[in-house]
Amino acid sequence: MNTDNKNLLKVINTTDEGELQALERQYCSFGDTVHYLEPPKFFDRAEGVYLYDRGGTPYLDLQMWYSAANFGYGNQRLQQTLKNQLDKLPQLACQYLHPEKVQLAAAISRLNKSKFGLDGRVQFNVGGSQAVEDSLKIVRNHTGKTLMFAFMGGYHGRTLGATAITSSYRYRRRYGHFSDRAAFVPYPYCFRCPYDKKREDCGLYCVKQFEKNFETEYNSFWDAKAGEPEFSAFYVESIQGTGGYVVPPKEYFPALKKVLDERGILMVDDEIQMGFFRAGKFWAIENFDVAPDIIVFGKALTNGLNPLSGVWAREDLINPQAFPPGSTHSTFSSNTLGTAVGLEAVRMMLETDYETMVNEKGAYFLQQIRALQKKYPKVIGDTDGMGLALRIEVCQADGYTPDRALTDKIFAEGMKGDLDVRGRKMGLVLDVGGYFKNVFTLAPSFTITREEIDLGVELLDLLIRRCAPDRI
Amino acid sequence: MNTDNKNLLKVINTTDEGELQALERQYCSFGDTVHYLEPPKFFDRAEGVYLYDRGGTPYLDLQMWYSAANFGYGNQRLQQTLKNQLDKLPQLACQYLHPEKVQLAAAISRLNKSKFGLDGRVQFNVGGSQAVEDSLKIVRNHTGKTLMFAFMGGYHGRTLGATAITSSYRYRRRYGHFSDRAAFVPYPYCFRCPYDKKREDCGLYCVKQFEKNFETEYNSFWDAKAGEPEFSAFYVESIQGTGGYVVPPKEYFPALKKVLDERGILMVDDEIQMGFFRAGKFWAIENFDVAPDIIVFGKALTNGLNPLSGVWAREDLINPQAFPPGSTHSTFSSNTLGTAVGLEAVRMMLETDYETMVNEKGAYFLQQIRALQKKYPKVIGDTDGMGLALRIEVCQADGYTPDRALTDKIFAEGMKGDLDVRGRKMGLVLDVGGYFKNVFTLAPSFTITREEIDLGVELLDLLIRRCAPDRI
Amino acid sequence: MNTDNKNLLKVINTTDEGELQALERQYCSFGDTVHYLEPPKFFDRAEGVYLYDRGGTPYLDLQMWYSAANFGYGNQRLQQTLKNQLDKLPQLACQYLHPEKVQLAAAISRLNKSKFGLDGRVQFNVGGSQAVEDSLKIVRNHTGKTLMFAFMGGYHGRTLGATAITSSYRYRRRYGHFSDRAAFVPYPYCFRCPYDKKREDCGLYCVKQFEKNFETEYNSFWDAKAGEPEFSAFYVESIQGTGGYVVPPKEYFPALKKVLDERGILMVDDEIQMGFFRAGKFWAIENFDVAPDIIVFGKALTNGLNPLSGVWAREDLINPQAFPPGSTHSTFSSNTLGTAVGLEAVRMMLETDYETMVNEKGAYFLQQIRALQKKYPKVIGDTDGMGLALRIEVCQADGYTPDRALTDKIFAEGMKGDLDVRGRKMGLVLDVGGYFKNVFTLAPSFTITREEIDLGVELLDLLIRRCAPDRI
Amino acid sequence: MNTDNKNLLKVINTTDEGELQALERQYCSFGDTVHYLEPPKFFDRAEGVYLYDRGGTPYLDLQMWYSAANFGYGNQRLQQTLKNQLDKLPQLACQYLHPEKVQLAAAISRLNKSKFGLDGRVQFNVGGSQAVEDSLKIVRNHTGKTLMFAFMGGYHGRTLGATAITSSYRYRRRYGHFSDRAAFVPYPYCFRCPYDKKREDCGLYCVKQFEKNFETEYNSFWDAKAGEPEFSAFYVESIQGTGGYVVPPKEYFPALKKVLDERGILMVDDEIQMGFFRAGKFWAIENFDVAPDIIVFGKALTNGLNPLSGVWAREDLINPQAFPPGSTHSTFSSNTLGTAVGLEAVRMMLETDYETMVNEKGAYFLQQIRALQKKYPKVIGDTDGMGLALRIEVCQADGYTPDRALTDKIFAEGMKGDLDVRGRKMGLVLDVGGYFKNVFTLAPSFTITREEIDLGVELLDLLIRRCAPDRI
Repeated sequence: MNTDNKNLLKVINTTDEGELQALERQYCSFGDTVHYLEPPKFFDRAEGVYLYDRGGTPYLDLQMWYSAANFGYGNQRLQQTLKNQLDKLPQLACQYLHPEKVQLAAAISRLNKSKFGLDGRVQFNVGGSQAVEDSLKIVRNHTGKTLMFAFMGGYHGRTLGATAITSSYRYRRRYGHFSDRAAFVPYPYCFRCPYDKKREDCGLYCVKQFEKNFETEYNSFWDAKAGEPEFSAFYVESIQGTGGYVVPPKEYFPALKKVLDERGILMVDDEIQMGFFRAGKFWAIENFDVAPDIIVFGKALTNGLNPLSGVWAREDLINPQAFPPGSTHSTFSSNTLGTAVGLEAVRMMLETDYETMVNEKGAYFLQQIRALQKKYPKVIGDTDGMGLALRIEVCQADGYTPDRALTDKIFAEGMKGDLDVRGRKMGLVLDVGGYFKNVFTLAPSFTITREEIDLGVELLDLLIRRCAPDRI
Repeated sequence: MNTDNKNLLKVINTTDEGELQALERQYCSFGDTVHYLEPPKFFDRAEGVYLYDRGGTPYLDLQMWYSAANFGYGNQRLQQTLKNQLDKLPQLACQYLHPEKVQLAAAISRLNKSKFGLDGRVQFNVGGSQAVEDSLKIVRNHTGKTLMFAFMGGYHGRTLGATAITSSYRYRRRYGHFSDRAAFVPYPYCFRCPYDKKREDCGLYCVKQFEKNFETEYNSFWDAKAGEPEFSAFYVESIQGTGGYVVPPKEYFPALKKVLDERGILMVDDEIQMGFFRAGKFWAIENFDVAPDIIVFGKALTNGLNPLSGVWAREDLINPQAFPPGSTHSTFSSNTLGTAVGLEAVRMMLETDYETMVNEKGAYFLQQIRALQKKYPKVIGDTDGMGLALRIEVCQADGYTPDRALTDKIFAEGMKGDLDVRGRKMGLVLDVGGYFKNVFTLAPSFTITREEIDLGVELLDLLIRRCAPDRI
Repeated sequence: MNTDNKNLLKVINTTDEGELQALERQYCSFGDTVHYLEPPKFFDRAEGVYLYDRGGTPYLDLQMWYSAANFGYGNQRLQQTLKNQLDKLPQLACQYLHPEKVQLAAAISRLNKSKFGLDGRVQFNVGGSQAVEDSLKIVRNHTGKTLMFAFMGGYHGRTLGATAITSSYRYRRRYGHFSDRAAFVPYPYCFRCPYDKKREDCGLYCVKQFEKNFETEYNSFWDAKAGEPEFSAFYVESIQGTGGYVVPPKEYFPALKKVLDERGILMVDDEIQMGFFRAGKFWAIENFDVAPDIIVFGKALTNGLNPLSGVWAREDLINPQAFPPGSTHSTFSSNTLGTAVGLEAVRMMLETDYETMVNEKGAYFLQQIRALQKKYPKVIGDTDGMGLALRIEVCQADGYTPDRALTDKIFAEGMKGDLDVRGRKMGLVLDVGGYFKNVFTLAPSFTITREEIDLGVELLDLLIRRCAPDRI
Repeated sequence: MNTDNKNLLKVINTTDEGELQALERQYCSFGDTVHYLEPPKFFDRAEGVYLYDRGGTPYLDLQMWYSAANFGYGNQRLQQTLKNQLDKLPQLACQYLHPEKVQLAAAISRLNKSKFGLDGRVQFNVGGSQAVEDSLKIVRNHTGKTLMFAFMGGYHGRTLGATAITSSYRYRRRYGHFSDRAAFVPYPYCFRCPYDKKREDCGLYCVKQFEKNFETEYNSFWDAKAGEPEFSAFYVESIQGTGGYVVPPKEYFPALKKVLDERGILMVDDEIQMGFFRAGKFWAIENFDVAPDIIVFGKALTNGLNPLSGVWAREDLINPQAFPPGSTHSTFSSNTLGTAVGLEAVRMMLETDYETMVNEKGAYFLQQIRALQKKYPKVIGDTDGMGLALRIEVCQADGYTPDRALTDKIFAEGMKGDLDVRGRKMGLVLDVGGYFKNVFTLAPSFTITREEIDLGVELLDLLIRRCAPDRI
């Protein structure tokens, strides 16, 4: 080893947090989300529902890597599966087969058959965005069209293709022209109805407005003469993730799907954040009584141990004639480690009644935060949830105007790790979402106990009192 | 557990290869590359330089997952690192920091500083394509332009954005309009010079032809009045991967870079396949004496244990002002498992003199296959290599006309696992590349021994004699 | 002259209508609008407010070439101007100057200065679409952005660029991908309010809905952090032409312009059909109390004698630094014949009080068709107008459901030329527009007399009675 | 008339050249080509082969409005036709028919049938760019693809769609992203061969290089598996106009067409500048023995009296099923004035042997400028021509290096109108083209006499001696 290399090793082998912070500032791109918090936070260890900082302080985590670690940090069954695969077949070019890939694809496809009555197949990839890209290929291939509908408030990833169908213009602004920019449609965010209606008597006005787009050719989306739409698919998160864990009215999706079906427009269901029981069902869309044409999934499939993602599509969209060899590819697409863990996670989901567990815990948690809302009406404007996907919308004293500053403050204070809970120093890890960045999107571990839920609520209570003393 | 789930578990828990093949045919997308071979091949175990099928037959692997497993299957040091991280911090939202991310970014950035004299930073992601997408963002952000140059024969991934700069039209054909399709430039593939020149006296005609594009505004790429190019960056693989492990003349890249620098066009160096000593240097481009503006990497960084990828860019392109928080993101972008393994791999690369090792083994291997070429001039038209990236171009009896059929046959026979090597039944795993799909692109493990190289050549010899008895 | 040519001359010199119909069927593209009527109609002569067919039957023309011949067919003053220019400077490369170009540009610019208080300049071209294309260049150059807003029901031409901002998908369907497709916004078509509101108490809900698009970055159009919109301009027809001569509420455009101004989005006012006093003012937009940033004009400027068109833009958008030499060009852009006639037409418009004349005639005509509506409430659902741009919306017996079939029938019967008006055989030339193709868009000559208006109403009455005897 | 209008009329009615220049500077966009010369030049009268400035000085015109006025300024036959149509049917909505439209379409279609053996139809429009746009629609409709090949040095107009297939990047630079940017192919400009070959022994290397693009899928343009090209048509000017009146080798186009036909790629022949006998044949492409699939024409069809343009296409591309009603449209598309004049011009072309006339005059003129080249080898590097399309390439003393400065100087001196020709003060109107803007592209009137040719050569001689005294 030459001297240069020795010196370099010395530099990078540091464990001093100050030096690490300095290295980070000099050598890491700030382009990801780390520097939304200054200074960024180091964590050292993760277990169950807790993250631990380098000083050993526990932080109750109510976001679980944005719902990627649904089954708890350090879940032993899944970790052991990964270790076993490491010892047997740690690597294999994806051109070749190993059982777990096949078994996992079969499991998901057969589950979908039982849920939706539809035959279909699975294509794996890594990272949610790449699965979204594969779904775009399937749609474009099938329809011959490149334009998509998607929701305002929707999020589907950050590749250029996924960015084109993700609502936030901030994600596109600096990257030139997006030839396939989606047409973004208002989502049924009833607390802040885009049409200022009340759910009680709106008659699904938002669906009717969407349907109006197809009334004549001059509404721009439809050629009545040819009976053909300009747009090929509608990308949906049935419960918006980044958009703020917004739960739509039960009747919304069936009504929307009817409009789409009548125009030959596909529905692509993005389950990357809400899939795998986050919303109390295997797929969140199952709560809404529609059968999507394509499902995209990722994140929690491996409990965060591998970026495995995938797309399931209806047989006619993805059969070997429609989507022949060479249609897509990526080096790690069905890697042995990811598929082994994913398969084990699905086995767990088959063996365990997560539907009951998640809904019960979710109901209890929602009850607690509703009590918090009642206690602090000048801080919390809305709470809602489905399964263990819960929302707390932080508002100004009027209970409606979004209060982003307070949201940020509560978040930052939680990260300090200095909350005193019966003599114990703790922190609270939250995630902020929502159109106005004023929503705590809670995605606790499915392993969370009632006591830990109570602790979470207590920490929230402490934070509210600390950050908004004048509004309690 | 309900009966349905029990039944489903029974189905997917099968270990019978016939049943697995049937499940695969029914539930797996054929859209990846598995069905290039019929029936697809199952492998069971991997170790060192061998894959083992379910019957225990060893297959010498000369492609190592297309250069993703450079350090050998089941490399113990890297596997142990993964296990350790699993036991400590298996999961962490990428919004937060852990040391290994920082250390790895620092190591790569400091190495690049010493190699190229340039300050810069690293942005991680997962999957090579997503790192390419991040590089596109950096380029588009910096130049305000969306059009790129790339090489004929070049390959940069299969997301829509990466497909637009990947040469093969087959990858785009069924997916509608690509607004950002690159302008593809002939690559210096001297064995089949695109301009029918001879290297001895061509005077780098290909670079001159490229430069001519900027002679006047009417050549379509340049506004002389404004001194501004229409295209923002040139994506290169210094040694083409999928294109057939083609090694360019030493003088090519310096001459090309000069043309680009004079027009303000960036060079993005895709090291996904050739990086991390495959071509005998940390980066393949180091063999060619130019400093790229951006480097994209992936694959072998984790030896195939995690899809971690990344992009390094010059400081002015990626500093916090140029590429501020929120510029990109992906859930798994700097995941703890991938960065821990990547960091350990870089430590290995610093501690071990891979440059000498890879070049020595490569020279020996190249010598052997050149002997094979001499022995079978009616089968092998060209051999070449740099480091342990080697090529064997299979041709018809004239030694020039590409022979794809024979290439496919040799490949398929190698996969049968019935080659008799001194009484031992073996297989040979090859990868086929090249513009005409007639090139064996050899990427053996860095841990391969002389004996194993000899074995590889012996297996190749056996296969040639079996598949082309009339041409030996 | 050779025999072939002689024979060809014989063929084409035919004046027999049957032979001409046959030649048309064989050699003319059906791609324009001629074959909306079968068989297509030949006309032979035009004078004043009448077209004459080959048999000499007069057809009262209430559409005047879709408002291109505002000053009457065969207007002697303008025709003489054309003849004079023919005798003096019939041709001149547009690289060189002649007085009429300069005088016409000066006249329009100074008029706009007095109307809107804005300095500006004129760029000429030929055909409305090309002027629209020039306006797109000005917008794209100024903003660096390529995406536009436009109205549902809006029409801006049929070049590919103009088609991208024209609402009807039918115009795009067969022509592949439109990278710059506009986002189409509902127009204030109050008779069929896109939001089912009533004008009395809507509070300009449609403007509020448009403004909501900019509420957060997740509404997809706005980056609040950067204070920057994704879209660069809003293309409007203040009164929709092809959309059915729909007159918006007076308060609409000032409210819309405020929203645009606050976001730095330009307003491009397409006056191609409504300009030059069709709506009672020099520009139709003058009725609505806003100052557009760009005005596009064409059609009636030469009374249909030359396709001269043009774009006026605010000085900062079009000054020689912003829009330097070579920014656009077309061979005939400021041709001597067109500019001479256009200049004379503007002189006429300065000398004559068309504002009073057109509004008086329009008011009288509107009164007559409102009486007709009262008489036939089961046929006419809506009438409205501004200046001499008038609409009659043909509906089913309920007075609301669009009746396209009846509209087509009335149109076709009018073209037969067999209406008996006090013993005289006549025809009526109408134009059909509207989202549902059920609107007669009346654009009579400014030279029309009260008697001719009465005659028009009588012919309409006759046609209604003939075509809808059961609903009178 | 109010006072404001009176004052405005006073201002614009000025005939003072200084005031007109001032108005022009203030109110005219500089975005066209007028200000390539400073100060811009006013002309007052045009007749035969002369333009006259306001002082009555004659300028011999060797560019004839870039070949729009082939039949001489003020051609009485055509002017009378226009006047007659003015008196009969000066206006008619293009939805209705008049004989001249049909007759002209029939004449062109039947001529093409006799020339190329192909049935077809004509679609009219106004302005060459709009005809190009119509041709793009026909191609996109037929192939379902949006990408085109075009030549480096090629020019097809300045709408956004035409700009995308026009080579000069300067025309695109300030207008954002062009999603349909053509792939530009080197044109056979043998004097400056793009491949540095000599015509004598090049073996049409340029065609071979173009064909190589289709060798494998990795050359980026062709999917060999599907037998499908990515690009739909090749836009050609058989003799480049703006590119510098470059005449290709006779064998070029047949060889190119073969390559295109074998790949299913259409050839669109842009005859806007070279059509109607400029190159000695009705269509310039007739000189090169290929049958194009689509022909676009404009300019000289009306001798500059009306912007009438059009596209002829093969029957299968444009028949009523392929290109049905509503496929395109423009208000003035088949206006009565333009079609009447165009029809009369075609009658003239049938009655008169322009082929002989133009080729004889052209041969004589070419002989004269070749003599000039011999006389001034240090000024003129190349001369060439076909019909009355002639080129003089101004070079530095080496006879090769382009001399743009001298070209500009000669051009500007010619515009001064102070050349002394046997005691008479005269000017010379030239046009500058070419990749390096160093080519005089001569397009004299077909009515030019030998004496006038001699005069032109004398004026050129005078200018050379005045501008380059050191090189004579």
